[in-house]
Amino acid sequence: MKGESGEKGQSGVSGKEGIPGQRGYRGRKGQKGQIGLPGNSCKHVYEAFSVGRKKVLHSNDYFQDVTFDTEFVNLYKHFNMFTGRFSCYVAGVYFFNLNVHTWNFKETYLHLMRNDQEAAILYTQPSDRSIMQSQSLMLDLEEGDEVWVRMFKRERENAIYSEESDIYITFNGHLIKPTDD
Amino acid sequence: MKGESGEKGQSGVSGKEGIPGQRGYRGRKGQKGQIGLPGNSCKHVYEAFSVGRKKVLHSNDYFQDVTFDTEFVNLYKHFNMFTGRFSCYVAGVYFFNLNVHTWNFKETYLHLMRNDQEAAILYTQPSDRSIMQSQSLMLDLEEGDEVWVRMFKRERENAIYSEESDIYITFNGHLIKPTDD
Amino acid sequence: MKGESGEKGQSGVSGKEGIPGQRGYRGRKGQKGQIGLPGNSCKHVYEAFSVGRKKVLHSNDYFQDVTFDTEFVNLYKHFNMFTGRFSCYVAGVYFFNLNVHTWNFKETYLHLMRNDQEAAILYTQPSDRSIMQSQSLMLDLEEGDEVWVRMFKRERENAIYSEESDIYITFNGHLIKPTDD
Repeated sequence: MKGESGEKGQSGVSGKEGIPGQRGYRGRKGQKGQIGLPGNSCKHVYEAFSVGRKKVLHSNDYFQDVTFDTEFVNLYKHFNMFTGRFSCYVAGVYFFNLNVHTWNFKETYLHLMRNDQEAAILYTQPSDRSIMQSQSLMLDLEEGDEVWVRMFKRERENAIYSEESDIYITFNGHLIKPTDD
Repeated sequence: MKGESGEKGQSGVSGKEGIPGQRGYRGRKGQKGQIGLPGNSCKHVYEAFSVGRKKVLHSNDYFQDVTFDTEFVNLYKHFNMFTGRFSCYVAGVYFFNLNVHTWNFKETYLHLMRNDQEAAILYTQPSDRSIMQSQSLMLDLEEGDEVWVRMFKRERENAIYSEESDIYITFNGHLIKPTDD
Repeated sequence: MKGESGEKGQSGVSGKEGIPGQRGYRGRKGQKGQIGLPGNSCKHVYEAFSVGRKKVLHSNDYFQDVTFDTEFVNLYKHFNMFTGRFSCYVAGVYFFNLNVHTWNFKETYLHLMRNDQEAAILYTQPSDRSIMQSQSLMLDLEEGDEVWVRMFKRERENAIYSEESDIYITFNGHLIKPTDD
């Protein structure tokens, strides 16, 4: 008689480990940065002078710079008290203003000067009455420009009045707008 | 006699499924966020004009605008040289200043005008002496306002003096404080 | 006799490959963007007044404050209309400007005052001709300082002229540069 069938074979071995999963998605983009801080405490540029003169001044044989002896304001010393000239360190638009007191029976004959150019005149005919006289204007200055007050020559006898105890003569200037802004 | 061997047994069952693969690598870091916006920038606003007149001006039968022929400063051309009027493009507080020279034996009869309103007067009685005369003030302007100098009518014979070679007449204005600041 | 059992069957086939691993975790969020740049400029400080007077004023037995009745500009009410004085709330450099009209046959005898000190004079000799007169200067003020216009005493009979319908007298001041800037 034929023998019985053999036993069933063993189970096969386990299958191989699956392949690694795919890399995760890229993270989301970071948040936008915060809005910047307010600007540094007003980085603003300033120029200003205000000077007075306590002494009278008479014309002489030549044109002369009107100088001043009293500083009300002189930022960074850009107004030179020795020469009577304001030097422009910051290019821009400046406002200038001049006030004087006339001398009885003499002319008042002054120019607001930009370098060697007359920008505007302050002129008063002579009289027996002394009064205040003013002139103002703006100039668009370049670095290195000088602004000053020039008294005319003796051929037109002229003078301005002031006192040790009272300031009649004042010259003012300040930056209105820097060019680089 | 012994019979034949039995048939070979059946194959065993399949092995178990393999274990899952390992988790994938972490995704890459997201991109850096964008840079934040600049801080609040109160960009400074400027307005300024300074004009002069080289020609004399006499009163006529009507009120007339005083016009100017010389630009010292005229930012953005907001001072109209044809009409003699400054137009306000930036609402705010402005300083205005006017300087003229009188004409011998005639009155000096001018107004600083805001639109059709007299804001302040510059008035001088006639005399045989010609002198400088000034007036200044500030105005809180709205966009579209006009500021100008008006000469009075002939019923009061009046005039202002200047020269081609020397500027006696000047009109200045500048923004002190924009309303939106 | 029965034959032997058949041979054992073959092992079963390998199991199937495991399923892929899970996707990796999402990457981390990107860094926050950098903070924005500082703003260009910042909060600017303003001070300004411009007042007028419509009424004449005559000297009396004592020094007197010149007061004003018309406000062209008065930021934060720092110019006191009752006392005629500007109070400094923001230390810094200020520009001041005064314009008046003389009274026929009387002197014009005024001072621009800083607290109890005369800073500059506006003086005009008497005459039969009435005219505009001006003075200007800058002062470097400290908090609490007061700036005002003082009329001299009767021992020098003096006066200034104005009209209800036309403003001849104006007093102006504004901050040029705060000390803390």
